[in-house]
This record gives sequence, structure tokens and C-alpha cells, in this order.
Amino acid sequence: MAKTPITVAHGDGIGPEIMEATLRIIEAAGAELDVDTIEIGEKVYLAGNPAGIEPGAFESLRRTKVFLKAPITTPQGGGYKSLNVTVRKTFGLYANVRPCVSYHPFVETKHPVMDVVIVRENEEDVYGGIEYRQTGQVTQCLKLISRPGTEKIVRYAFEYARRNNRKKVTCFTKDNIMKITDGLFHKVFEEIAPEYPDIENEHWIVDIGAAKLADTPENFDVVVLPNLYGDVLSDVAAQIAGSVGLAGSANIGEHIAMFEAIHGSAPRRAGQNMANPSGLFLGAVLMLVHIGQNEAAERAHNAWLRTMEDGVHTYDIYKEGVSKQKVGTREFADAVIARVGQKPETLKAVTYKAGEGGGGSFAGRMARETSASKKETVGVDVYLDWTEGSADQLGEAMSEMSGGGLKLTSISNRGVKVWPGGHTETFCSDHWRCRFVNESGVAPVSHAQIAALLARVADAGFDFIKTENLCDFDGQPAYSHAQE
Amino acid sequence: MAKTPITVAHGDGIGPEIMEATLRIIEAAGAELDVDTIEIGEKVYLAGNPAGIEPGAFESLRRTKVFLKAPITTPQGGGYKSLNVTVRKTFGLYANVRPCVSYHPFVETKHPVMDVVIVRENEEDVYGGIEYRQTGQVTQCLKLISRPGTEKIVRYAFEYARRNNRKKVTCFTKDNIMKITDGLFHKVFEEIAPEYPDIENEHWIVDIGAAKLADTPENFDVVVLPNLYGDVLSDVAAQIAGSVGLAGSANIGEHIAMFEAIHGSAPRRAGQNMANPSGLFLGAVLMLVHIGQNEAAERAHNAWLRTMEDGVHTYDIYKEGVSKQKVGTREFADAVIARVGQKPETLKAVTYKAGEGGGGSFAGRMARETSASKKETVGVDVYLDWTEGSADQLGEAMSEMSGGGLKLTSISNRGVKVWPGGHTETFCSDHWRCRFVNESGVAPVSHAQIAALLARVADAGFDFIKTENLCDFDGQPAYSHAQE
Repeated sequence: MAKTPITVAHGDGIGPEIMEATLRIIEAAGAELDVDTIEIGEKVYLAGNPAGIEPGAFESLRRTKVFLKAPITTPQGGGYKSLNVTVRKTFGLYANVRPCVSYHPFVETKHPVMDVVIVRENEEDVYGGIEYRQTGQVTQCLKLISRPGTEKIVRYAFEYARRNNRKKVTCFTKDNIMKITDGLFHKVFEEIAPEYPDIENEHWIVDIGAAKLADTPENFDVVVLPNLYGDVLSDVAAQIAGSVGLAGSANIGEHIAMFEAIHGSAPRRAGQNMANPSGLFLGAVLMLVHIGQNEAAERAHNAWLRTMEDGVHTYDIYKEGVSKQKVGTREFADAVIARVGQKPETLKAVTYKAGEGGGGSFAGRMARETSASKKETVGVDVYLDWTEGSADQLGEAMSEMSGGGLKLTSISNRGVKVWPGGHTETFCSDHWRCRFVNESGVAPVSHAQIAALLARVADAGFDFIKTENLCDFDGQPAYSHAQE
Repeated sequence: MAKTPITVAHGDGIGPEIMEATLRIIEAAGAELDVDTIEIGEKVYLAGNPAGIEPGAFESLRRTKVFLKAPITTPQGGGYKSLNVTVRKTFGLYANVRPCVSYHPFVETKHPVMDVVIVRENEEDVYGGIEYRQTGQVTQCLKLISRPGTEKIVRYAFEYARRNNRKKVTCFTKDNIMKITDGLFHKVFEEIAPEYPDIENEHWIVDIGAAKLADTPENFDVVVLPNLYGDVLSDVAAQIAGSVGLAGSANIGEHIAMFEAIHGSAPRRAGQNMANPSGLFLGAVLMLVHIGQNEAAERAHNAWLRTMEDGVHTYDIYKEGVSKQKVGTREFADAVIARVGQKPETLKAVTYKAGEGGGGSFAGRMARETSASKKETVGVDVYLDWTEGSADQLGEAMSEMSGGGLKLTSISNRGVKVWPGGHTETFCSDHWRCRFVNESGVAPVSHAQIAALLARVADAGFDFIKTENLCDFDGQPAYSHAQE
């Protein structure tokens, strides 16, 4: 087998020890790797690189496309950027993958039967960090969900399930409330699922789904989620599995993928041959499957499971009466290597099979059919910062802005319609939405009409703070109505 | 004691039985109520009222300001609106309060020591349902967090804690990512907490906080949350407490408050004297504390706890070996009434003390000091639907739109800066943000300048889809920068 080039960083604290142990185990299990080592972390930060990585190191990542990364220490004080965020943003790592597994009865847990993989969308949702404060009272964050971003993450989840011999993919959204954004995520899930008839699929509203996941995780397999739900529920799942110190994760992009432990660099344990290398090791197993070295992944992972159930444990999970032998980092690696070729007897053995596509790139198979749908602009929402009176008074004043083919149809405040009609008990903030649509109610609205409307609103002395065009796609309104 | 007027609706299915049991218990415990009964639910829906409540019933709610509501059945088929959403929107019920308690060893649970109250903001966040699709690929939802909305919910959480003899209020946000919106929620929490020196306070990032709540709920007391986190985590907390069938909740507004069970109308159990009235009963206890009848609340609640631990259980929680006597709805109420004056011996007895303010109205104590802060508009983000080329090409074209005192400074795509500079690997959707600021970089920008810029952009044939003004407050930028 030709060696696969990978980029390795040994990191800080316990990083070098657990990386050495990890590489020894996977090579003993048959991994064929051509390792390029780069420097990241504390020394690099302190040398004046604000992201903790040298510009030259990016060349290695661009060449190998695979990054096995030990934990790093970010120096105290401000001005240092997160290395993970930098790598994720630079290379568009759209999927965060985190297996959350309990190893009962060998590691303590309230959920003895748990083997869940959280596949979290990693670029969109509220994590674009696009925020504005435009009035005294109200702040705003944009939640963005895109069709290509959703297609990538959903397809990745099903491909992952297939390669990892998984049976079911579950999707969580809140599309009963967010019909357009979460509705798109759910719709794309329903579109792609039938392409994987060998994999079961289901969808839950995220509140009910989260309650089920926290209470009966044994009913879940692979779970694919928009960014925010994934952030919260991947932490919930890892915590209740009882395996935070034993978990690895992957960050997958179309070009590059990064594999790591989910724990930190634990500087106080460094250099003492104490640390448990299992988190990084399980990250490396994800890497081997990603690069198609499935046999090595299977042999390494099963040897590790056998070591766990043989009670050969590092200090962090060692427990009198359950464990048999307390070992250091090196000795733990030796124990796993000695078991290469064996399978666990109590815990479930893993199997990996080759997937299609490979490398996480599905670009050629994106649907994107909606780019071809016909869009018409049919109106505009003009938002105002206004504190001078009641909804009825604003309705009267803004009605005078009608003209040039546009007319005011409604005003809402924090999503509740307050004009015409409205209830006296509705609390109105200083953040008002005035909806203007084409006077005739049918023909499209031009951008020049919108610019002219804003000029009139400005002339009248109103503080417009934002606008949102109202668009129809293929004749269907693609914007929400205010709640009455 | 003068009788407190309340509005009562007996609802559908098991509603009438559990309401009768509930009213009998609380009156036996000393509640002084002047009950006005209204009709809601299935019959009202089918009579042609799309929200399941007669217009006249609103008059009763406006008069009594207190609504004790049994579960209802929404008829099959479309066109029926949620009664709860209608009442919440009409009356601005800003707080959803849900105690999640485990009753170990009398009711089965994985979390024997759990007594958490989730106080969820109920009007803002992504639940305004303000959504737009404006390009082929990207959909958008607005997340709104307001200062008055946040002040109300945070103050309510502390007032609730004080009245209910609670020791700690915990706040969850994601303000490491959403510095402006969740940052405001966290900031208001920090401002209000010192007004309650008798109550401990703490804040967790929501992912870590959720993991702790799901794993070790015994470490939490009152938890106050923005709407979305509250939606997900109130369901998680109720589920893991094992008490979904035993939980009541309150929806609190400045004018009106509504109290109910969290379960449904269970039509198949109706009329059989089987249903457990505990959920509605515990909702009624929340009501008694809300209207200041604390002694009756305490006597009723302690008698109920004593009944639970005496093993007098309805069918839904009856368990051989744990329970002592299986009873019907009426007999359960009789058993609680027989124990009025007694306290539980194994479970913890409750105590309630009078709070300040009362009725959930803190309007007079709102800070709203930021309405006085000085705002200056310093630029505008113009969003485009554009698919004709690269970020550099768009940068060149949009640079020509500069003029009239405004100049293009950067372009980003889904929150990542792509011009000037940018990385070749960054995936660009059809949703572009072009940031224009004042040419001199200091003086304010006028609304007429923004309207003129849009007119130029329209003239050049670009499809602008939305705008967001950039504002400074008291000299500080109040908008996010793109991630590089």
C-alpha cells in the first residue's frame, strides 16, 4: 500500500506524549503514513504568530490535506486567536464529527448503552457572528442556513454512516417555528435520505429530540444537526457518555480534514508518562477511515477496545475493583499494540467499510437545483428606530411614505403585528418593521423603487436602520408573516 | 382574606376531571378564589373560532389577569391556531416557568436529586419567526434580543427565586460567539443580580451548562435562559426528572399570567376517573404563589408531597413494591385533602415567602438607561444576491459604487471575509455582504447618503437584497466584524 501523506503537530503539554503513543499504535496496526511534522501552539504564539501556526505550515496542510493535531496551550493574555477557528475558517471545515460512546462496565456512566455520533454543521447558523445593534433597546444576530452548506453536512452524515457501518441517521431541527431556515435543513435531509436506502432516517423537533437524546441515548446512532443545536448537544452527549477524556473528533472540509482529541493540553500532567492517549488515538482512527485505511483503523480500534475491557487503564479512568492494571502512557500504548489482531469480547467490535467519494468531497454531487428557480422581488421591509408614539401613530405617518408603486401594508414589533389592528397589551420596543408591497399587489418591485422609498423615508426624518427585500421564488412567498 | 378573582377553563378530555380535583384541593388548603369560568378548546374551535377561545373570554382574562387552564384538544385538520400562542402573543407573556423535580424514591428517575426551575424568555430570540429567503442558496432568520425583554425575564427569575425560597439563579448564554445579542443577555444578568444579594448567581456558556444540567442537575436551582436554549433545555430537564406527567408550568406577562399542566388532554382516558391531576395541581400552586396566597400554596403543596410519599398513586405512576394504593382522580384529591396540614417526611417540604412587586409587573423598575445613549450611523452593509464571479471581481465592481462620502471597505460571505485578501479554499455562496463606511472614517453617515448609494447599486444592475446600518453607541462600534 502506498503511504498516505499526513501533517502531524505534537502540540503542547501532554501533546507530544500522547501523539507518540498514538502514532506507535496505528503504525503497529498497519497504518501506512508519510508524516510531515509542523510546529503549532504556545511557542508559535509567543514568537508572534497570532493564530499559533506558522504561515509555512499551511503549505503542508494544503499538500497533505490531512491534519492530525495534538492539543495546544494558548498563552495567557489577549490578542491570541483560536487555532481551530483559523483552520476551520481558512479551509472551510464544514463538518464537526464527535462519537460519544460509553464503555460500560469498564468506565462509569449513567447510560451504559450509548454509541452516538454527533455530526454538527460547522460554518453557518448563528456562528457567522453577524450581529448589529441599531436601536437603544434591540440587538440582532443573523442566522443563515444555506442549501449547499446543508447538502454538504447531510450528505457527509450519510456517507459517514455507511463507511462506519451505522444503521440510522437522525436529524433535529426546529422547523415548526423556523419554517424557512430550519425548514430548508429538514427539506434537504428529506431529499438526500432516499439516496441511502440502506440507512434508516428520522427527524425530531430539536426540543423533543434533545430530551430523548439526554434520557435514552441508546435509541440514537448518527445525529446530524445545524451548528447551534450541534454545539449544545455534542457537549451533552459527550458528558452523559462519561467519556469526555476518551473522545476524539474530526473537522471535515472539502479540501482538508483535521483530527484531534476533544480534551486540552493538561500542562500539569506533561512529561510524566501519565496521560491517557485514547482521545487523540480515537481521533486518529477517524482519520484512518477518512483516508481509506479501513483495515488498519479496524485493527487498531478493536485492539484498543480489548485493552479497555482487559482493565489496562491509565490513572484517569483507573478504578479499584474494575480496572486490573494501572499503566502510564507508554505502557498503555504497548498494551494496545500487544493486542493488535484481537477483538473485544464484552464491548462490541467495530467494523469499517470503504465508502464512495472519499475525502469528504461531494462537490460534484451537489444538487443546487434551486439556483435555477425564478425569483421576483415583491416588496421590502423597512425597519425603523422610533420611540415617538404608538403603533397607530407610526402607521399613520408611514402610510404617507406610500407611493412610487409601493404601499404600506403592516407594521410589526419583535415579530408581532401591531398595525393595523393590534392589542393594547403588546409591549412595543423601539425596533419597528414596516412592510411595503407593490401597490397593485402583483407586479415585481424594482430596486430603484426601493431606493426611492428610502429616500422619502430619510427626507421625512425617520431613522431607517435596515431593510429586507421580500422575494417570491417560483411564485411562492419566501418570507414570513407577522404573528397576529 | 378577600377572594382573588381568577379565570378558569375546564378544557377537553381529562381536563374537567383534573380541574375539579385541583380546585377542590387548593380550596381545602385555604385558597380564596372568585372563579369566573370560560369556555375554550374543541367546541369553541368547531364553532368557528380559529384560536379556540371566544372573543368575550378575553374580557374575563383582562379583568381577572389570572388564567388557570386545563388541557384542550385541537381538532384534526388545518386552519386552527394554537390557543397558547394566541394568548402569549396577545398579552405579552414573556416568561415561561417550568419546575422539573424528581420524586425519588417514589417515582422512577436516573437523577434522584433534582429540583430545577427553568425560566425561559418567551417572546424574543429566533421565535419572532422573522425569516427571509432572498437568494437561491441562502435563507435567513433574525434573532432579536432586547434590553427591556431581557430585563423583564432576568428580574422575574430573581423575584421567583426569592418568593420560592430558592438559593441560586444560573444564566446560560453563548456570548463567546454572539457578543452583541447573547452578550446583552449576559450583561443584563450581571447588572440585575447584585440587586438580589440574598440569591447566588452564576453564568455558564450554554454548551457546557447544558452538559452539566443533563449530567448533574442536582447542581442547579433556578436557570434563566433566552428563548431557544430554554425551549430545548426545559424539555431535557422535564424528561430526565422523570416527571413529565407531574409537571405544571406558568406563562407570565406584565398584565396577565396563565397556569397549566405541561401534558395534553388525553381524550382516551377522559371520563374514567383515572387521570392524574398533579400536573394541573402543581400549575395551580404556581398560581397561588403568583397571586400572593403563599400559605395556601404551601399547605396544598406539602399535602401533595405527603400523599406522593405515602404511596397513594394514580395508575400512571403506580408501581408494585413502591406504591401502596392505586386510586382514581377523585380519590387522589381526597387523599391530598385529608393530608392538608401535614408535611412530607422523606421528600423536602416547600416554603413560600411573599415577594416584592407582585403580579409579575416590574415595569416601574426597568432600567432602560441605554435609550439615552448616543447613537451615530457610521456606515451600511449592503447584501447582494450575486453569482457572476469571484470575490475579487465583486470587490472591483462594488468599489466603483463608492462615492457620495461612502467607500467600500470589505466583502464577506457567510461571515467570513473574502475581500480584500481571502483564501482560495473559502466556499462562497450567492449571499454577499459589502461594507461601506464614511470616506473620512469619522463623521456620521446620513440616511440620504445610504439611499443614494442604493440608487447607484440599483443603477449598476446589482440585486441588493438587504441592508444593515452600522451604528456606534456612545462612540463604540455596535456591529460585528467579519472573521478572517
